[in-house]
Amino acid sequence: MSEAAHHNGTTLTDEELRTLDAHWRAANYLAAGQIYLVSNPLLTEPLAPEHIKPRLLGHWGTSPGLNLVYTHLNRVIKERGLDALCVWGPGHGGPSVLANSWLEGSYSEKCPDVTRDAEGMAKLFRQFSFPGGVPSHVAPEVPGSIHEGGELGYSLAHAYGAAFDHPNLLVACVIGDGEAETGPLAASWHSNKFLDPVHDGAVLPILHLNGYKIANPTVLSRLPGPELDALLRGYGHEPITVSGDDPAQVHRALAQAFDAALDRIALLQRTAREEGVTQRPHWPMIVLRTPKGWTGPAEVDGVPVEGTWRAHQVPLAGVRENPEHLRQLEAWLKSYRPEELFDADGRPRADVLACVPEGARRLGATPYANGGLLVRELPIGSLDDFAVPVDKPGATLHEPTRVLGGLLEQVMKDTAARRDFRLVGPDETASNRLEAVFDASGKAWQAEILPVDEHLDRHGRVMEILSEHLCQGWLEGYLLTGRHGLFSCYEAFVHIVDSMVNQHIKWLKTSRELTWRAPVASLNYLLTSHVWRQDHNGFSHQDPGFVDHVLNKSPEVVRVYLPPDANTLLSVADHALRSRDYVNVIVAGKQPCFDWLSMDQARVHCARGAGIWEWAGTENGAEPDVVLACAGDVPTQEVLAAAQLLRRHLPQLAVRVVNVVDMTRLLPHEEHPHGMPDFEYNGLFTADKPVIFAYHGYPWLIHRLAYRRDGHANLHVRGYKESGTTTTPFDMVVRNDLDRYRLVMDVIDRVPGLAVRAAGVRQQMADARARHHTWIREHGTDLPEVADWTWAS
Amino acid sequence: MSEAAHHNGTTLTDEELRTLDAHWRAANYLAAGQIYLVSNPLLTEPLAPEHIKPRLLGHWGTSPGLNLVYTHLNRVIKERGLDALCVWGPGHGGPSVLANSWLEGSYSEKCPDVTRDAEGMAKLFRQFSFPGGVPSHVAPEVPGSIHEGGELGYSLAHAYGAAFDHPNLLVACVIGDGEAETGPLAASWHSNKFLDPVHDGAVLPILHLNGYKIANPTVLSRLPGPELDALLRGYGHEPITVSGDDPAQVHRALAQAFDAALDRIALLQRTAREEGVTQRPHWPMIVLRTPKGWTGPAEVDGVPVEGTWRAHQVPLAGVRENPEHLRQLEAWLKSYRPEELFDADGRPRADVLACVPEGARRLGATPYANGGLLVRELPIGSLDDFAVPVDKPGATLHEPTRVLGGLLEQVMKDTAARRDFRLVGPDETASNRLEAVFDASGKAWQAEILPVDEHLDRHGRVMEILSEHLCQGWLEGYLLTGRHGLFSCYEAFVHIVDSMVNQHIKWLKTSRELTWRAPVASLNYLLTSHVWRQDHNGFSHQDPGFVDHVLNKSPEVVRVYLPPDANTLLSVADHALRSRDYVNVIVAGKQPCFDWLSMDQARVHCARGAGIWEWAGTENGAEPDVVLACAGDVPTQEVLAAAQLLRRHLPQLAVRVVNVVDMTRLLPHEEHPHGMPDFEYNGLFTADKPVIFAYHGYPWLIHRLAYRRDGHANLHVRGYKESGTTTTPFDMVVRNDLDRYRLVMDVIDRVPGLAVRAAGVRQQMADARARHHTWIREHGTDLPEVADWTWAS
Repeated sequence: MSEAAHHNGTTLTDEELRTLDAHWRAANYLAAGQIYLVSNPLLTEPLAPEHIKPRLLGHWGTSPGLNLVYTHLNRVIKERGLDALCVWGPGHGGPSVLANSWLEGSYSEKCPDVTRDAEGMAKLFRQFSFPGGVPSHVAPEVPGSIHEGGELGYSLAHAYGAAFDHPNLLVACVIGDGEAETGPLAASWHSNKFLDPVHDGAVLPILHLNGYKIANPTVLSRLPGPELDALLRGYGHEPITVSGDDPAQVHRALAQAFDAALDRIALLQRTAREEGVTQRPHWPMIVLRTPKGWTGPAEVDGVPVEGTWRAHQVPLAGVRENPEHLRQLEAWLKSYRPEELFDADGRPRADVLACVPEGARRLGATPYANGGLLVRELPIGSLDDFAVPVDKPGATLHEPTRVLGGLLEQVMKDTAARRDFRLVGPDETASNRLEAVFDASGKAWQAEILPVDEHLDRHGRVMEILSEHLCQGWLEGYLLTGRHGLFSCYEAFVHIVDSMVNQHIKWLKTSRELTWRAPVASLNYLLTSHVWRQDHNGFSHQDPGFVDHVLNKSPEVVRVYLPPDANTLLSVADHALRSRDYVNVIVAGKQPCFDWLSMDQARVHCARGAGIWEWAGTENGAEPDVVLACAGDVPTQEVLAAAQLLRRHLPQLAVRVVNVVDMTRLLPHEEHPHGMPDFEYNGLFTADKPVIFAYHGYPWLIHRLAYRRDGHANLHVRGYKESGTTTTPFDMVVRNDLDRYRLVMDVIDRVPGLAVRAAGVRQQMADARARHHTWIREHGTDLPEVADWTWAS
Repeated sequence: MSEAAHHNGTTLTDEELRTLDAHWRAANYLAAGQIYLVSNPLLTEPLAPEHIKPRLLGHWGTSPGLNLVYTHLNRVIKERGLDALCVWGPGHGGPSVLANSWLEGSYSEKCPDVTRDAEGMAKLFRQFSFPGGVPSHVAPEVPGSIHEGGELGYSLAHAYGAAFDHPNLLVACVIGDGEAETGPLAASWHSNKFLDPVHDGAVLPILHLNGYKIANPTVLSRLPGPELDALLRGYGHEPITVSGDDPAQVHRALAQAFDAALDRIALLQRTAREEGVTQRPHWPMIVLRTPKGWTGPAEVDGVPVEGTWRAHQVPLAGVRENPEHLRQLEAWLKSYRPEELFDADGRPRADVLACVPEGARRLGATPYANGGLLVRELPIGSLDDFAVPVDKPGATLHEPTRVLGGLLEQVMKDTAARRDFRLVGPDETASNRLEAVFDASGKAWQAEILPVDEHLDRHGRVMEILSEHLCQGWLEGYLLTGRHGLFSCYEAFVHIVDSMVNQHIKWLKTSRELTWRAPVASLNYLLTSHVWRQDHNGFSHQDPGFVDHVLNKSPEVVRVYLPPDANTLLSVADHALRSRDYVNVIVAGKQPCFDWLSMDQARVHCARGAGIWEWAGTENGAEPDVVLACAGDVPTQEVLAAAQLLRRHLPQLAVRVVNVVDMTRLLPHEEHPHGMPDFEYNGLFTADKPVIFAYHGYPWLIHRLAYRRDGHANLHVRGYKESGTTTTPFDMVVRNDLDRYRLVMDVIDRVPGLAVRAAGVRQQMADARARHHTWIREHGTDLPEVADWTWAS
């Protein structure tokens, strides 16, 4: 007997049981059909090899479980009039979600070609995992999905992200017991300490223990019952267990479990919303223990398949060649009694559809899973209200991220009622100097609050947890369901989510190609505490490679900005926050940084993405002798200091200073929508003069972007080359040959004729570097001439 | 009263309590001293601003807790004669571990300059977080460390890795409650389902709840006691809680807790080893709840510091400028009564050292934390025993990873007694066709085993869990403690550990610079199920970018191999498994692949890393008209098919085929130890002929590697450009313009004069591509001419 039987949930009537089972059988039939059949969808002819797909692809094992959950979600959505979304953690169960959305009609609404009849069923089957058709996973092509689940681990974080600030939404989340072994999923359980029962919806985790992964049992399925129960209670949940392999018994128990869980959710929400109780609720969850590949072939070729890992993908692999397999497949498909489920035209019968809700309540039709339908313009005030005044370049210092904090505070305030903007980060909002936002919103926190705590808030929209995975997963879920946000992160540790951002970019790329998916707000990163100012934490905290990672991905989706000061940061952040369907990576420092551009200048410079800073160079209309280019705040400062040294020591040299904000401008315009045409590139960098490029990250990235340009042979890049430790800020640039003295030496080495003429200057620069080395070892600080440096033209 | 009091552990004598407390105070004094003092280490003069470091860097908050654990570990190691290692999860607590290793003398043995006296203490203080000194974290420079902990999350996985196959080792692991929020750490708790009590050592997790991260309370510290208890029992542990802020009480309780835990570990090991009990033990663990920054300033500037997040880094920040802070610092340091702890010469007094074990048992001196001292040559037989016979190129097909499986099986067999080789992977050993190893070892598994299961083995050395983080963390711990291993992973999802491999490469880079750290076995990746053969799983499973990621890192550490067939895979794997202190990335397919080279040819080719395949081209001694280059198994096949088409259709064209196995050979030899000199590069690729390069991954990587080469302007690269879905294998290469027909068109487009002469051939190629598109949409399979293609010269 399952635990659910202890609850006084509704008991299914026989009629309900019959129709639920019919829906489940229909979904199972359609899932198996997609994997196997290329024609003869209703088995109106005896099954023959020519009806079978030439390549059998797809995952049967998880499908019956997903079908069961979909069926029962239908019942409670319809009965209770719920707004619901389901995150299908076992995202490889594409056949299942496709089957259900076809049954409920939402699939045909998105893809009118695939009608809800025999002809459409044949197309549904044929297109699955077929070239030019639909992929095998719960990909963007699948209605109702916000989660593909390709690499596993993010379902529960996505579910929470979807639930935040959607108070009337139920987000069910099926978690496979394979996925449950991943780190991100294991951490996600604690998301319930961040779910506000007043302003957020509910998440109902459904842990599906079908016992096996590809080739192994799963850890959680092999825990003794009391140990698993302790674990889930330790995660802060009240588990309701449903277990069995008899369909009728499982239907009854699962219906009771859903009713008990939803009753409890309603009670907890009422308690918090109407009675003002602030104690963290222990939310219900369902543990569903059913066989892997349930209702599929029990044995194949003499070995058990149903209920084992062998059911993971295609249980009968040799159907086209092996008559026994073909016979087994036919018997399996007929075991669902398709003639009871579909009429002669292949339309689902009324019984099958009895549990299906109407219109936008259908899981495949909910606008919550097509967030672009819900998203509103983010209110962003005039940047002039937050800008720092700049009368002349380099006269003042500001912490750029602190200035951005002012803008974010205002956005947070202006969305206080709408609640559609969140800031996420791993415990670093204040460390990253964004703490002004706390004047508009505290930090979400549902666990115990002590008097000594600051800014913790049961209704906060700043999210901090020491898990980049959760920050990313929450934000993805939040954005894909129609809201806005920003992820602020230490630059080095954003690599933790490399693989997650891969998947999100792939999701966006595919979504953009689907006319029915409306554009969602971009995923915005603010990478700060960056490589050049991790001098105090040392080598482990120094890595600027996320930009390289992102720039490998689809150019229509990715954007990378390196604003050199506070006002340019405001400008690119404004642009990023307003944009749709992008991943915007902004790298900006939190340490005091010279203000180079006024707000108006910053707007123009950022709109261009790259430009000549005439005031910083020494050219006079003619072609320069050398271009000093820079991207990033610290490289910009070093380039300006180098330009100043050149002006002093080699006043006849015509030096041009170019600053790049938008890295993708360096790409050919055939390769990226922001790429510059060659004439524009040559206008900035010249076609044949030496270019010394001081770049924030790994130097070869610039070559990778610019290798096709005319002047590439003259391009010399300095950047981070993995030479770091705990040291001083200036020593970091010296170690990596990005310092002002080295840049001047580079100019002397590369401008024809200068090597001899400027040998003395070169020696002075080398001496300054030597002086630096001696000084820091003695004093532990930077040379006064560096620490006190200011710009003067 | 702590739970520990319920155990009948030893009670400390007053004398023991006194000496333990003295050791703890000494370590606290030394930790604080490192953060603050540049001179006057023994406070023999009144503390003055000039004694204070110009930059105050370091993390005080975690230090007293780590010092407490180090002190008590000393006691039990000495009393019980244990071989022990400690993984310090809060790796930013560098001052603490440095302090303790200085106290026990192991530091001075590694760094003779830093003597165990006043002069050495002054150096210890001064060098900390000082340019040219030591970093602020428990970095490789710190004796006894195998874990820096920079980005947090991996301590427990490292601890298990260290314990596997070290039956007599105790691995204590301090887990910070901040780190405990990360995904990898949350997943790591279940590592106990993989720890063999017979052949593995013990892991003793010590969850240190000091309550706060940088700016927030921690989730676990704010769970109600019973909820936390349920969670830890759910993880399979028996928690022993020690809580308090009175040193004497905590000392007593912690000593009892350690005794109880170690008694229980001894009992569990005895039960398994002597009585043959196979039930999974519930291992003990310690929950230590003490204030953050304990014994530091209680309040600073009127706000609480001790016991709050404000103690995280430097609790008194203005010591040089603010006389009140200076006074507080002096009082704080004197509160440890340094005159009782150190003699007039600054040497630790006998009382302080009473708990410290001898020689190699000291945590800072254990060879287990300097694995290169323990590592032995891996027995690898002759490759000829595993090679596939190749009389002529392309006449036979083998699955390369299956062939490698034979070699790995033998290594597994030959290490059966030594137990110093493990294979890790996320549930994919069989899927990756390495299942021959199961004939030598089953899969490690301590949870329930059912009759239907296959290859599960309580003593297995194949490790499978659906967590790339755990695979990586376990293997890192295993390698750093002197053993060997291989991580086989789906290519796309190895990005999950991007950030971990960053940290490991940084660790190796730094370790190589330390004479006292002996070289350890390399971390070897086998990336298979790669981008070109994820046609069935679709876009989410297609990403070849890990190579790009790794090649951004220190060239002295990273190596990347793309063997084109089975025998070349054997050769590079052999080389990788024998190597030291590298990260070797091998990308190889698991699908049937033509055998191109005999074992002897493969050896020579792999030793060169890149070479001309004369048999595949049509040049006759003279310079070729065009070079077809390839790297990776699928690109190699397409290049050979293109070469064959060219031979047939344009027999006069002199085509050279170059295959690259070792990607770093393309780099300039100044940039990587494997880089080719220009004359060699030109000898392969020519200085001026068109080169069509078919590359496995993102095409721009080749440009990034080769942009300095003479012929770079003529280099045209094809590779993966994020165009994927669920489709056929050949459609994958067509979509990304890497197919044979496209390559022939590229040749025609780029060889001067061919465009007109070969316009007809070009059209044939375009027609073939069109035929492909029609065919797959109709049949769902590849064109017969492609599917049945074989090589013929």
